[in-house]
Amino acid sequence: MNNTALRSWVEIPENSDFPIQNLPFGIFKTTGTEPRPGVALGNMVIDLSVLAENSFFDVAEIPDPGVFFESTLNPFIALGRPAWKKVRQILQELFSESSEAIKGNAELTDAILIPMDNCEMLLPVEIPDYTDFYSSLEHATNVGIMFRGKDNALMPNWKHLPVGYHGRSGSIVVSGTDLHRPMGQTKADDADAPSYGPSKLMDFELEMGFIVGKETELGEVVSTENARDHIFGMVLCNDWSARDIQKWEYVPLGPFLGKNFGTSISPWIVTLEALEEFRVDGPAQDPKPLSYMKNPAKSTFDIQLEVLIQPEGKNESIICRSNFKHLYWSIDQQLAHQTVNGCNVRVGDMYASGTISGPTEDSYGSMLELSWRGSKTIKLQDGEERKFLKDNDTVILRGYCEKDGQRIGFGEVSGKLLPAKQ
Amino acid sequence: MNNTALRSWVEIPENSDFPIQNLPFGIFKTTGTEPRPGVALGNMVIDLSVLAENSFFDVAEIPDPGVFFESTLNPFIALGRPAWKKVRQILQELFSESSEAIKGNAELTDAILIPMDNCEMLLPVEIPDYTDFYSSLEHATNVGIMFRGKDNALMPNWKHLPVGYHGRSGSIVVSGTDLHRPMGQTKADDADAPSYGPSKLMDFELEMGFIVGKETELGEVVSTENARDHIFGMVLCNDWSARDIQKWEYVPLGPFLGKNFGTSISPWIVTLEALEEFRVDGPAQDPKPLSYMKNPAKSTFDIQLEVLIQPEGKNESIICRSNFKHLYWSIDQQLAHQTVNGCNVRVGDMYASGTISGPTEDSYGSMLELSWRGSKTIKLQDGEERKFLKDNDTVILRGYCEKDGQRIGFGEVSGKLLPAKQ
Repeated sequence: MNNTALRSWVEIPENSDFPIQNLPFGIFKTTGTEPRPGVALGNMVIDLSVLAENSFFDVAEIPDPGVFFESTLNPFIALGRPAWKKVRQILQELFSESSEAIKGNAELTDAILIPMDNCEMLLPVEIPDYTDFYSSLEHATNVGIMFRGKDNALMPNWKHLPVGYHGRSGSIVVSGTDLHRPMGQTKADDADAPSYGPSKLMDFELEMGFIVGKETELGEVVSTENARDHIFGMVLCNDWSARDIQKWEYVPLGPFLGKNFGTSISPWIVTLEALEEFRVDGPAQDPKPLSYMKNPAKSTFDIQLEVLIQPEGKNESIICRSNFKHLYWSIDQQLAHQTVNGCNVRVGDMYASGTISGPTEDSYGSMLELSWRGSKTIKLQDGEERKFLKDNDTVILRGYCEKDGQRIGFGEVSGKLLPAKQ
Repeated sequence: MNNTALRSWVEIPENSDFPIQNLPFGIFKTTGTEPRPGVALGNMVIDLSVLAENSFFDVAEIPDPGVFFESTLNPFIALGRPAWKKVRQILQELFSESSEAIKGNAELTDAILIPMDNCEMLLPVEIPDYTDFYSSLEHATNVGIMFRGKDNALMPNWKHLPVGYHGRSGSIVVSGTDLHRPMGQTKADDADAPSYGPSKLMDFELEMGFIVGKETELGEVVSTENARDHIFGMVLCNDWSARDIQKWEYVPLGPFLGKNFGTSISPWIVTLEALEEFRVDGPAQDPKPLSYMKNPAKSTFDIQLEVLIQPEGKNESIICRSNFKHLYWSIDQQLAHQTVNGCNVRVGDMYASGTISGPTEDSYGSMLELSWRGSKTIKLQDGEERKFLKDNDTVILRGYCEKDGQRIGFGEVSGKLLPAKQ
């Protein structure tokens, strides 16, 4: 599917996240125009609405070509996998070296290919429901050791089901949206009573999320075997966390205000088709999961991930290198578990992984772990150091697959932590 | 605002929940017609689309009269409080005894007033985000005693903030929607490993929810003083719960599959305007909440609540009588807390109260409490008895305010628990 030999007549910079083998979908606009669907190719955005206007999708027999003029990808995604594949195939043909259909026409080329630098990227989908899982064994173990000690680190349920909770869909924002340090209620261990003020322990969480492509009815169950039919693609996700707010509020019903002031995602949804060649087996699971969560072969992906911090006016520093393949629970298992009780899913739903920590100390996906609850210092360039985030720090998450000279990337999700509004 | 003396020319049955002083909003359809907004009056539904077609709302200067032809109330609600009040006032005038505008015209009357029995009620709003609070001191204490013993019943944070969690908005259904007993993963205390099967401990939770009427931007805070401007009205809510699934899964991130297989709400949204005369002070709060949660006077409502169970083919039995006024945290405080960190809210969001238990054993709002975790039997009519729900039991929640001969009711939310789909 990702024919490595395929080349585009559009110039693709070396090490680009977006070769013709990728073709991720997003929503963009340029100054004075309406938001509409686009696909990334090298440093350009392919304007799908112009392709549709010029009848390039007619052969795809899309039931409603209006989907290429919408301000979210939901209507396009709702067409289903055959339509996604067909559109992908048309794009690969139109932009492959051998095709003359567009490249011979300078006016058309200019209308269809818009420099990425001129585009503002918007939230690619309307997200009806958002679940955040907790699927990294290393992260759950690290947090468990910090808060409950080594002997009780993992809760008894952890290896039997992908623990997760409902997140807040309304405060999911696209990369580039800056967020204010949240105000809230916290209680110091040695204080008699809680107090109100800005969070003092601001953190990121390195996560990825998958976007649902096919809805189910209430009462319908998705098996692990069928899960892939329900998944459109994946994004990077920074689950910003206010550790002090979270610590005081989360018992017994889970994270709430410590998380829902904002969750950032990358603008380009990389399809499962584009990721197919980077499939790998996940970690061995012991004990064996119950039958409804039997893991299909190659249930996960080899996606290299990194987190960078850029203090205001300073250089960025990589503080974490991890990999999606470390996750214990697969996305197939997550979706099967989410629906085992008949809970319905909708097109655009996001299911995030939870913090993706790896086995080594430099692969931990949060400052909580990297600074081991503030007991260690994280060294940055330019003499900067951190335990948690400072005001005006920008957090950047990047991700890409690489194999046999082929790179399929996610671009990045970045966001600046602005000072609290008091 | 609820002029008790006001009478309608439409016949209102004695003890109706829907006198001319109430006028709750919903979405209905009749056979072969499209869903549209309606208002309940006695045993009739006022078809707002026909009123709009006949220019009765022209004086309200509604910016977009298309809102009366939509399949959800969100666009109407988004017009804001002045529009809600104006429409309410027009309806009270048109249907008051002294008005001849409609009642003199038999054809118009037939087009506008549709017998409720001929109407199918649909979900009144699209619910972007759903939060479920845990605001009953009695419920939290009861559950705490059962699971942690009397000395540790209340968590340290409980009296400092309205504990809550994000619920699943996509599985909120309207009254009359039957749900299957969920399948899922549970672990008996004496079992070595979890197993997969139908939940054995099915329960309801007696709750109410408020519906947001005015959105906020990310970063914006709603004060307790301004909260009422952001609230359109209230509904009854049955937060179906699978106690055995919940018990195994909920540590440490909170309720998930034990709840998200379905949450039922009543079809009519009773506006805050209609409830105004039933305002009362909530319970005294000690310790005093932090300043951002200062409770305004008369922050709650005297709403009588009851829960009934009707086994298949048998009579219904009241098993609980409670009151909304028992809740420790007010809706003003819930909304202020939800937004204190800058979390945005959207029109149609639902914020549920958590189980509304009262101080006496017959006022507990769940079977978990009524049967004290299965240690007591709940007696029903016809020789039936329960500890938890049986297949084909219908659960009915009703609610109404009553004072000085005036009754403002919520109607009911009912749903049958169908056998598991295996």
